[in-house]
Amino acid sequence: MGKLLIVGTVAFDAIETPFGKTDKILGGAATYIGLSAANFKTESAIVSVVGHDFPEKYLDLLRDKNINLDGLEVVPDGKTFFWRGRYHNDMNTRDTLDTQLNVLADFEPQVPENFKNSEIIMLGNLHPAVQLSVIEQLTDPKLIILDTMNFWMDTTLDLLKEVITKVDVITINDEEARQLSGEYSLVKAARAIHKMGPKYVVIKKGEHGALLFYKDEVFFAPALPLEEVFDPTGAGDTFAGGFSGYLAETQDISFENMKNAIIYGSNLASFCVEKFGTEKMQNLDIVDINQRLKEFRSLTQFEINLT
Amino acid sequence: MGKLLIVGTVAFDAIETPFGKTDKILGGAATYIGLSAANFKTESAIVSVVGHDFPEKYLDLLRDKNINLDGLEVVPDGKTFFWRGRYHNDMNTRDTLDTQLNVLADFEPQVPENFKNSEIIMLGNLHPAVQLSVIEQLTDPKLIILDTMNFWMDTTLDLLKEVITKVDVITINDEEARQLSGEYSLVKAARAIHKMGPKYVVIKKGEHGALLFYKDEVFFAPALPLEEVFDPTGAGDTFAGGFSGYLAETQDISFENMKNAIIYGSNLASFCVEKFGTEKMQNLDIVDINQRLKEFRSLTQFEINLT
Repeated sequence: MGKLLIVGTVAFDAIETPFGKTDKILGGAATYIGLSAANFKTESAIVSVVGHDFPEKYLDLLRDKNINLDGLEVVPDGKTFFWRGRYHNDMNTRDTLDTQLNVLADFEPQVPENFKNSEIIMLGNLHPAVQLSVIEQLTDPKLIILDTMNFWMDTTLDLLKEVITKVDVITINDEEARQLSGEYSLVKAARAIHKMGPKYVVIKKGEHGALLFYKDEVFFAPALPLEEVFDPTGAGDTFAGGFSGYLAETQDISFENMKNAIIYGSNLASFCVEKFGTEKMQNLDIVDINQRLKEFRSLTQFEINLT
Repeated sequence: MGKLLIVGTVAFDAIETPFGKTDKILGGAATYIGLSAANFKTESAIVSVVGHDFPEKYLDLLRDKNINLDGLEVVPDGKTFFWRGRYHNDMNTRDTLDTQLNVLADFEPQVPENFKNSEIIMLGNLHPAVQLSVIEQLTDPKLIILDTMNFWMDTTLDLLKEVITKVDVITINDEEARQLSGEYSLVKAARAIHKMGPKYVVIKKGEHGALLFYKDEVFFAPALPLEEVFDPTGAGDTFAGGFSGYLAETQDISFENMKNAIIYGSNLASFCVEKFGTEKMQNLDIVDINQRLKEFRSLTQFEINLT
């Protein structure tokens, strides 16, 4: 088993979907990534920041999943990052109603000494300057995975591009791949993004699954067709957690094994959306995950004997 | 090998895409279905209607593919059905600029005597009254497959629903599945449509692939990621032709074999969109199709050994 270093927000979310709304609940990219990766045999740590208002019970929840929090700074006179959003009826689009950066505004990440030699690095969605700082603290990374979003393309593209030159895998959604590359075709977009640095390009299409591009090859993991998507918040991060957690456990970063990793990413994301926030992710077990893996198999595997 | 009866339009299309535009070219649901199914070992026939303006060379093209045209009525004083459309930049939406029903307005389908005992029936998109008339002429159908569209849901829903009660498989796109069922979730939509009659529900999602629902099971065939979708016209019909043609050749209508059939449908549709109209479909061969089947395999097949 390998060390997995997770960087990203640990936050409060307030969510409205057609099915209901929540008060401030546990959220943040690193939270979802950590809870998802906790389903694999890894030694994992979160680098992030929260304020004095962040409840001890949430920290305990993460610690109980064997996630090292030495790199989680608690700012005594600061408040935790907060996001409030509302999903449209189709669940594929959402409006941000409120964003309070709070302690995130001045965050300077410190990778714990014991995790500077992590093999797998999962850079969750955050300011590219933070991601860059973490990369510079690493001593022997085997695979650096970057998740980012259109907001950073709009506001700090040059710095983001510098980060992109330094990573092995990038995971972004289809619209972001188009924005970053200037190409509408996702095949062409992936090729353009390869040239920016990452050997592996993962394009997330939400309910339409995810594509993994490597050289001239492509692999596709569908999303599991669900009766109801209850709350999509954190699905992309949960996907990233399953992807990076599986790679950290298996310590095999070949293309063939990365196919399995995106199947596990899709597998775990399919649980995440079934309840509000992190609720479903707090109590998964390997039996659930293996059962769903069988569903992914029967969903996609076929046997044609050429005549 | 089995008999495949194909019902649908044989038509002229004029198409505009971001890549160019065509004058009147060969089109129509039955044309695309026939050209696609011609890649399988079947005895197939088209039931349709054209006018005096329909060129002999197009009839020869279909005959050269071993498609029986005894059921293709030529109306001496009528004109062929014509459709003109323009695709938007995303290629997923289009505007109909002109529709001239012409000979289709009074079409009364006649199934050739020799094809009344066809095993596989592919009812392409047409007025439900025509589809119903064809069903009533059959003596021993093994599998009736229905393709339809939102236009008939808007204009003649009751008759369409009557047709739906009489078929084994329905293929519609995601928006149409939602309209027909009143359910947003495709899983729920498929369940509702099962209750209307069809044991098998195929939901086409264009560039996002196709889902096959049967009882509580679901299978997914992705669309092949392409550098460029040149012209989506006929992709759904080509999918239906590959699906029905493969079933007619193999004469195996089990769920397991239907999985293969929708892989072949996706396979053939991926060729169709690479050129304008039927151009690509006129000159496919088995080497192309088998090569692409390998691409579908490597796109979707994975091997996870549970630890």
